[in-house]
Amino acid sequence: MVLLASLRSSPLRQPSRAARLAFSTSSTLMQPLTVDSLNSQLQTVQYAVRGELAIKAETYRDQLRSENHNLPFDKVISSNIGNPQQKGLDQPPITFTRQVAALTEWPALADLAPGVFPADVVARAKELQDEIGSIGAYSHSQGVPFIRKNVAKFIADRDGHPSSPDDIFLTAGASPGVSLWINLLITNPESGILIPIPQYPLYTATLAQHHGRAIPYLLDESSGWSTSPESIETALAKAKEEGTTPKALVIINPGNPTGALLTAPTMTSLIRLCEKHSLVLLADEVYQNNIHDKSQSFVSFKKLVRDLKSEVPLVSFHSISKGVSGECGRRGGYFELVNVGEEVRALVYKLVSVGLCPPVSGQIGVDSMVRPPKENSASYALWKSETDAIHTALASRTKIMAQRLNALPGVSCVESPGALYLFPKITLSAKALEAAKGEGKEPDAFYALGMLDETGICVVPGSGFGQKEGEWHYRLTCLCPGVEEYVGKLERFHAKFVQKYGSA
Amino acid sequence: MVLLASLRSSPLRQPSRAARLAFSTSSTLMQPLTVDSLNSQLQTVQYAVRGELAIKAETYRDQLRSENHNLPFDKVISSNIGNPQQKGLDQPPITFTRQVAALTEWPALADLAPGVFPADVVARAKELQDEIGSIGAYSHSQGVPFIRKNVAKFIADRDGHPSSPDDIFLTAGASPGVSLWINLLITNPESGILIPIPQYPLYTATLAQHHGRAIPYLLDESSGWSTSPESIETALAKAKEEGTTPKALVIINPGNPTGALLTAPTMTSLIRLCEKHSLVLLADEVYQNNIHDKSQSFVSFKKLVRDLKSEVPLVSFHSISKGVSGECGRRGGYFELVNVGEEVRALVYKLVSVGLCPPVSGQIGVDSMVRPPKENSASYALWKSETDAIHTALASRTKIMAQRLNALPGVSCVESPGALYLFPKITLSAKALEAAKGEGKEPDAFYALGMLDETGICVVPGSGFGQKEGEWHYRLTCLCPGVEEYVGKLERFHAKFVQKYGSA
Repeated sequence: MVLLASLRSSPLRQPSRAARLAFSTSSTLMQPLTVDSLNSQLQTVQYAVRGELAIKAETYRDQLRSENHNLPFDKVISSNIGNPQQKGLDQPPITFTRQVAALTEWPALADLAPGVFPADVVARAKELQDEIGSIGAYSHSQGVPFIRKNVAKFIADRDGHPSSPDDIFLTAGASPGVSLWINLLITNPESGILIPIPQYPLYTATLAQHHGRAIPYLLDESSGWSTSPESIETALAKAKEEGTTPKALVIINPGNPTGALLTAPTMTSLIRLCEKHSLVLLADEVYQNNIHDKSQSFVSFKKLVRDLKSEVPLVSFHSISKGVSGECGRRGGYFELVNVGEEVRALVYKLVSVGLCPPVSGQIGVDSMVRPPKENSASYALWKSETDAIHTALASRTKIMAQRLNALPGVSCVESPGALYLFPKITLSAKALEAAKGEGKEPDAFYALGMLDETGICVVPGSGFGQKEGEWHYRLTCLCPGVEEYVGKLERFHAKFVQKYGSA
Repeated sequence: MVLLASLRSSPLRQPSRAARLAFSTSSTLMQPLTVDSLNSQLQTVQYAVRGELAIKAETYRDQLRSENHNLPFDKVISSNIGNPQQKGLDQPPITFTRQVAALTEWPALADLAPGVFPADVVARAKELQDEIGSIGAYSHSQGVPFIRKNVAKFIADRDGHPSSPDDIFLTAGASPGVSLWINLLITNPESGILIPIPQYPLYTATLAQHHGRAIPYLLDESSGWSTSPESIETALAKAKEEGTTPKALVIINPGNPTGALLTAPTMTSLIRLCEKHSLVLLADEVYQNNIHDKSQSFVSFKKLVRDLKSEVPLVSFHSISKGVSGECGRRGGYFELVNVGEEVRALVYKLVSVGLCPPVSGQIGVDSMVRPPKENSASYALWKSETDAIHTALASRTKIMAQRLNALPGVSCVESPGALYLFPKITLSAKALEAAKGEGKEPDAFYALGMLDETGICVVPGSGFGQKEGEWHYRLTCLCPGVEEYVGKLERFHAKFVQKYGSA
């Protein structure tokens, strides 16, 4: 009671010395903030893309700044993350996107630097400014209505089916949308969501965060990482046996980390499967513009759901971080709701409104992605040559890398038609497995750490994405320039590793 | 089994017509996605700042575009949200901030438009670019290390105590940081967090989202919305009786919606209270640069915690959305950890890494806020005149509005020394209460809706922030230009309302 009474000082009166002493005695009882006192569920979150290897790579990068770094490489190559514009990688920003961005940041530039900006850029920036006003203001929580209209038109043109701006939610990259939907769908700790294995670890991380269960289904490496409805049915049956209530199916198309591209017949089967099991379809389509194989093309789930007149609730995610845009740091993206009613949409709106609005510069990035320069406009030729160069470099590099990796003993690599990655399988000798165990590492993490230590190349072990029991992979991006030097490093490391640990 | 078998089509084979028919039969059983099938906890989330009134205001704004709108006003004034650069409001962006932003968007501009940018802007942009590389790349998940260094220096200069870049986490505005910490602190459904009443509804909304309990403590309107440790002790005792485990204390200083500024003695008592009860102190200090009363000054909790050598774990939030920056749409902010150990920091890092990184343009906005132009630099004079004008306008408008509101019958309004808002109390007649009840509205929502319908001014009812039982308020921002016309509208509406419903 003494302590309590001593607290009863008026807010404007300094506590007495006695009171302060009483407090400082009590403060010795104060518990420090420890991990154990925090949400235990969050401690289970794993996100390998920025995990142990990425942190070690950063340490090496710092070390390289000193002249006597004593490292066997002179640069760190971040192949762990699809971050096209990162230092040392080679995907340049699209000039049109950046010119529009610069003019909306400081509109006076159009007059202060006459002739510096192409006419279509000036017109575009003015149009955006008239609609948005200052980009320093919060926008509509769902995103600027005008930009949502442009997104809807982009989708309608792509699919041949109408799209409504009311069903578009602009987001800070695809991730917050995925996280929101997982939060919405997990109604209790028994709720589960079907996740491909291998998967992009955002899904399992977000499920852990929201106390939900992952229901893993295996992709088939032997058929180019194809998605099989049978495998999903097997996973569903197992989940139900375990008391899990399946709520949604996640499909990543083109695949991450696999690069696989779904065919329309498979997609049809998957839509039917969602109908049968009343699942929401969460379609991660952020790599839709990264198709390297010209004989194949991307088909959206929206198009097929409408073609089939299916009533499956679909949420489709897109982003400016990938594709030729590659504007990861801007944080822009959107999701479209299909077969989702007014009441649910209002709930989604309420939830996004708590976060106020997605970054306006990201929203403008979305606008530039869905409305590239028109043919015959002043910016078109440059835009065309820039985007062609990006597609060509990525396609050629992906092909060369897959071929060279496939030529290595104990390595096999599906030639990926899409996305930004390869996901080679590595077979490891008993000696290598033993050595990994000795260091308390997963075998593929052991291999990847060795690669980082020897070459400065940072990849992500397959265990971070999930893989079949007893198999080992790693994911690397196809974004590094100088493919010859780069693959050479991988080859020399692998040869040395095999020499040391033997082949499997 | 037939249905299951029919799914076993190879991913490359079109399902047979029979299979498709089988599926389409099953699809009639598919349940539509309803709110009831989603996370029920999320349905309890309330966020009045963008609630019913804001949505109605948008409808009016659309309606005004038609010539025969038949509305008794010619513009909607959004006084519901602290959004200084919104259309129709009058806080312009800081030129320095926007020039730096434009140059980092398109660095070639420095050469293409020589002489257009002041020398210090060119140097600043180049420095940022050398550190960051392309702003289109994901940065470090915790924020660009160089910018975190600058934030740490800003804090150290402000407080006279060291700050480490490792303890700074850059965020997309303050909200995601608050949400992350509430998520961390809610370990089970009995966990609670002390929230001031009235509060900024982000707190209760985020608590609802993360299945936690709000422990409300009352601010004292009669002493200028002061915070009293006694009131917090009372709330704590009640919470413990109800089986709630208190985890943290939220303090908003300067206050939102109240505008109150804490004194150092009160802050000392609050720190001691956190020590006594082992509470984490969550200090929302986003209005630290919005002080209108020159006789008062902002003191950070970081300074006092260090002055007192307290071991209270403190998370302090700041943002570029308020102050003279007002860059809401850019989504920039940070939180600093104080007395938080390495292990907890690593957990926080892991969680933010799942979201990849805060928007880089927001991070650059933070840099411009913590490193404004130096005296004698080319940009200083303009920066000084712009920021002085913002401070002066806000201080004078806040004062005039409070005085005029206080002159109205049945209205009393604390003269706010800080932040962007006023929170007048309105007393309502029995007839008004009856009329509100008849329309199924809270009385202050009824009053605010009447105001919107008559004047086009959109405010937020006090019930959205919480208030003492039987009291009614509303929050309005002090951001509208033309204070005479603006307050005139409020006065005429109030007179008419009193005429219709009588005084209390």
